[in-house]
Amino acid sequence: MPLPRRPQAVLIDLAGVLHIDDQAIPGAVEALQLLRAGGLPLRFLTNTTRSPRRRIVSNLQQMGFAIAPEEVQTAVHATRHLVEQRGLRPHYLVHPDIADEIGHSHAEPDAVVLGDAGEHFTYAALNTAFRLLMQGRPLIVMARNRYFREKDGLTLDMGAYVAGLEYSSGVKAEVVGKPAAPFFLSALEELGVAPENAVLIGDDLSDDIGGAQAAGITGMLVRTGKFRPGDEAHPEIRPVATVDDFAAAVSRLLDR
Amino acid sequence: MPLPRRPQAVLIDLAGVLHIDDQAIPGAVEALQLLRAGGLPLRFLTNTTRSPRRRIVSNLQQMGFAIAPEEVQTAVHATRHLVEQRGLRPHYLVHPDIADEIGHSHAEPDAVVLGDAGEHFTYAALNTAFRLLMQGRPLIVMARNRYFREKDGLTLDMGAYVAGLEYSSGVKAEVVGKPAAPFFLSALEELGVAPENAVLIGDDLSDDIGGAQAAGITGMLVRTGKFRPGDEAHPEIRPVATVDDFAAAVSRLLDR
Repeated sequence: MPLPRRPQAVLIDLAGVLHIDDQAIPGAVEALQLLRAGGLPLRFLTNTTRSPRRRIVSNLQQMGFAIAPEEVQTAVHATRHLVEQRGLRPHYLVHPDIADEIGHSHAEPDAVVLGDAGEHFTYAALNTAFRLLMQGRPLIVMARNRYFREKDGLTLDMGAYVAGLEYSSGVKAEVVGKPAAPFFLSALEELGVAPENAVLIGDDLSDDIGGAQAAGITGMLVRTGKFRPGDEAHPEIRPVATVDDFAAAVSRLLDR
Repeated sequence: MPLPRRPQAVLIDLAGVLHIDDQAIPGAVEALQLLRAGGLPLRFLTNTTRSPRRRIVSNLQQMGFAIAPEEVQTAVHATRHLVEQRGLRPHYLVHPDIADEIGHSHAEPDAVVLGDAGEHFTYAALNTAFRLLMQGRPLIVMARNRYFREKDGLTLDMGAYVAGLEYSSGVKAEVVGKPAAPFFLSALEELGVAPENAVLIGDDLSDDIGGAQAAGITGMLVRTGKFRPGDEAHPEIRPVATVDDFAAAVSRLLDR
């Protein structure tokens, strides 16, 4: 998919694109200011589900990024929306820090909802979820990312636990965050922009670029965050461009 | 595969076939005595890796089974053999109760070895294993069973963690225990019996019956343990017979 001649909106992944842990990626703060000056509407999409949105936004602001809470679409919020829409009463296996944001587990659950519980992914918690799945409950997961980058290296993400539960239970998970097409499309609907007129910038070939591509949105891949050499040569997922970092992606967009 | 006209050895799975937790399955103790009286050499094969062999055997003896340690082939012992044979210096993510039996982790590991760590499958332990895999170390797993039956229901087995690590790292695991063909064949080699002259009795369609079938050994499926209705109608894995329990399997063998 080519870049739109005149992009009308930009979707931006957060971790690995704008920052790693609590460090802004060099040049990213200034590049975001430049992009804002161009007047394009922006939405920030994140599969991070270990923190509530207010903390994600305040961390970004502390790093110097001018981002408002309503511009950030999280997999937690999208999951809460889906649960309400369907009237579900889930059992939640999530990080305690998002318990207030997502809601609390029901005593007689009709679904299992998984977030990135991190160190709270205990064997006992996983076995409880497994047994509910074996009783026929559906599995809804906020994300299924393989790993993310922390300061000290690549780190296991919740996708390992999703794949593990799927394997043992035989139940296939429904993903709410990236790479699910509705996650990208609902952000664009809010802005009234068609997929072919939008661009996504991400560091995750499969969940960012591949997910956007499947939703009809062109993706630019950055060589920061979880990017690994070889990602740009995938047989089916084809970023419109692979650039060094967010600043280079913004230059590319504004040059047009 | 038909039953051999005159079986020369019987391979028997333990958990779910002879016992569940610390309870012998009704009739199993007497059936094993009957089978012994028939004079056939026996080997007991187990993927249980949360306990050392001496405890597995003493538990069986306490339930009334006359079984000697050297008749029991465990995935832990087979793994130790493989590690020694290849001269590996692994990082072990295993249950602490088998640490003495398998050995201790090396400071500069050249492989990752997984057993069923149970509640010791913490996020931190899994992330350590994940990072070693991302550095190119091979993944050797004692088993990849999906679940097993405990008194209070089906319980998550180590296969969930194997599948999860495979998913996130992209590294494919090598399985040492069932359903790996060498695990079945080495037991028969010890007895000097050819696969076509042996019979296996198990409760796990995929890992017991399917594994044996792939090694050229006929399998009888019992409707105890992790057996679930529908198992007997698998398109590719075909037990030679599906019987109520171990006692029925023994009758069937001795009737011939």
